[in-house]
Amino acid sequence: MNEITFAVLGTGGIGRRALEVSQHKDALTPVAACDRHGVAVDFDGLDVDELLAATEGNIDNEVATDGGTGATTAESGVKQHGERKGVVASSQARPSEDPIQEVIDHGDRIDAVLLALPNYEHDFIPRTADRFAEGDYSGVMIDVLKRSRVIDMLDDRSEAFEDAGITFICGAGATPGLLTGAAALAAQSFVEVTDIDIWWGVGLKSGYEDNRGTVREDIAHLPEYDIETARELSEDEIEAIIDDHDGVIEFEDMEHADDVLLERAGICDAEDVEVGGILDVRNDEKPTTTTVRVTGRTFDGETATNTFQLGDETSMEANVNGPALGYLKAGVRRNRAGEYGVFGPADLMPGF
Amino acid sequence: MNEITFAVLGTGGIGRRALEVSQHKDALTPVAACDRHGVAVDFDGLDVDELLAATEGNIDNEVATDGGTGATTAESGVKQHGERKGVVASSQARPSEDPIQEVIDHGDRIDAVLLALPNYEHDFIPRTADRFAEGDYSGVMIDVLKRSRVIDMLDDRSEAFEDAGITFICGAGATPGLLTGAAALAAQSFVEVTDIDIWWGVGLKSGYEDNRGTVREDIAHLPEYDIETARELSEDEIEAIIDDHDGVIEFEDMEHADDVLLERAGICDAEDVEVGGILDVRNDEKPTTTTVRVTGRTFDGETATNTFQLGDETSMEANVNGPALGYLKAGVRRNRAGEYGVFGPADLMPGF
Repeated sequence: MNEITFAVLGTGGIGRRALEVSQHKDALTPVAACDRHGVAVDFDGLDVDELLAATEGNIDNEVATDGGTGATTAESGVKQHGERKGVVASSQARPSEDPIQEVIDHGDRIDAVLLALPNYEHDFIPRTADRFAEGDYSGVMIDVLKRSRVIDMLDDRSEAFEDAGITFICGAGATPGLLTGAAALAAQSFVEVTDIDIWWGVGLKSGYEDNRGTVREDIAHLPEYDIETARELSEDEIEAIIDDHDGVIEFEDMEHADDVLLERAGICDAEDVEVGGILDVRNDEKPTTTTVRVTGRTFDGETATNTFQLGDETSMEANVNGPALGYLKAGVRRNRAGEYGVFGPADLMPGF
Repeated sequence: MNEITFAVLGTGGIGRRALEVSQHKDALTPVAACDRHGVAVDFDGLDVDELLAATEGNIDNEVATDGGTGATTAESGVKQHGERKGVVASSQARPSEDPIQEVIDHGDRIDAVLLALPNYEHDFIPRTADRFAEGDYSGVMIDVLKRSRVIDMLDDRSEAFEDAGITFICGAGATPGLLTGAAALAAQSFVEVTDIDIWWGVGLKSGYEDNRGTVREDIAHLPEYDIETARELSEDEIEAIIDDHDGVIEFEDMEHADDVLLERAGICDAEDVEVGGILDVRNDEKPTTTTVRVTGRTFDGETATNTFQLGDETSMEANVNGPALGYLKAGVRRNRAGEYGVFGPADLMPGF
């Protein structure tokens, strides 16, 4: 594996942390970053320190309504500290009417594109992928999406990705992502997996401002909401929901893509996967220990449960971004070997 | 991935269980099996049930002294229940003066060769690999070796493997293997890994007869022994050592290949990896829970420990053979993509 260049679409919490974590990885160079206000491109490598410092607190948490054309000019929701909004507060960036197209236009020098775009319409990531495929991009695209139904939309595009030479890695954050991969690995002890239980804890006090989009997306998993109604909530309404729960929201039986990602890798049936967790936005301590339990039957007839637990001190950001970059590298390896189409985290693990 | 054909060298405990577990895997067909007495080859797929039933209790635990030529005729140590020793007790097998060469001669129809050969000289597996490379084999070779120093011997052959088109997967059982992969995955939360602690428990009462080779290999890890002196122990001497320990032997700071396999994958320094465990040959219950602890520093400055635990009811055999076949498949994927040389379990995991 030689040097890998990558672009980040979206400079909210996930995109920013991905840039930061990439500085710890050898042979990985961030060369482009954009939000809907502008784009920064530098094939010698972005100055991540400058970009993060200049845009600190300048996070655009606005929900996109433009379907990924990049042409929206809605301005509310941008946390603006300087004169310029979003990524263009960095001296490396410039405003753009269509920042995504600018990344596509440079696609021949970009090995991988990280779609750090939570909280948009369901089809936003698939439609963004369409634009890359139509724009003759051939490389890796990777997202950290959570919703099961989006995987199907990506699968519908599998042939187009294969024709374009795109290796699309979906659901490659913490969960789905790190925990999905851990489940796939833990399943290797068994000849039949009967249950996979993914239970996460996130404490987000100090990261709350940077992760409002993620919190909104989580609220959409509550029984009273869906992604459309959650998208229409005002910031005040979200605060009210958080207050109602005293800052601690518990989720059960979430529609989380882990289920379909494990089924497509042949690990178990989607219906045998359960995902839930507890979000605490008022403490940084995790309200519960993130745990994956994989129960199955061994070839010699025993039933057992293998367990994977994340240390409570690991933040959501650490568990999303390290794995996302790891899966990105695995995707580049596949891409360079000529393997195109749609892959989930479990597809990238050793195993049958 | 299409159909995968594989051969097993060695029909002791590991080889037999690999054949058994392979029956649970779609698109994986065992086509050859040999021990030093003979060979069975059938490209329509071996009849595993017949082979295992016919050779049950017919395990050859003898230590090879022939350096892999297959020409030895030493007969002590073969547990012989029928008229014929080892694999030739199966109606599918026939005696051979050089069974390994017969597998090599069929190599163009074999995608992967599992070297299920514990307890031989250190260079037995490397020299067997030499024979395959010299015999124009181009496919996957995979072993479940445990000793750190053997990895170096394989690395010395890296260029020869690349020239031959061999993808050699080393240390791909339970530990190293499943647990090494789990450590590599757990490391994804961190930008720096400071300690990896692998602690295993094995209860082997009902599997003791089939796994005498593994027990001998474990005894070589005791401070008073090394692999040469352990190889020279008689069965009675091994029984005496086990009696001295009341059947329960604890190992600390073992020379286990996990360390170099994690270092070569860039996860941490070899010296930061510690491996130990407890073997109980008189109970099937594990004397301790097999646990991997990966401690590191996150990008946001926290120190934490991620943990992977195997259910106590999972046998050593389940944890060796499922992962070995999973890594075998990952190796075939690499091989078909034109990636040759030496790979450890951690190299096959997503990650930087």
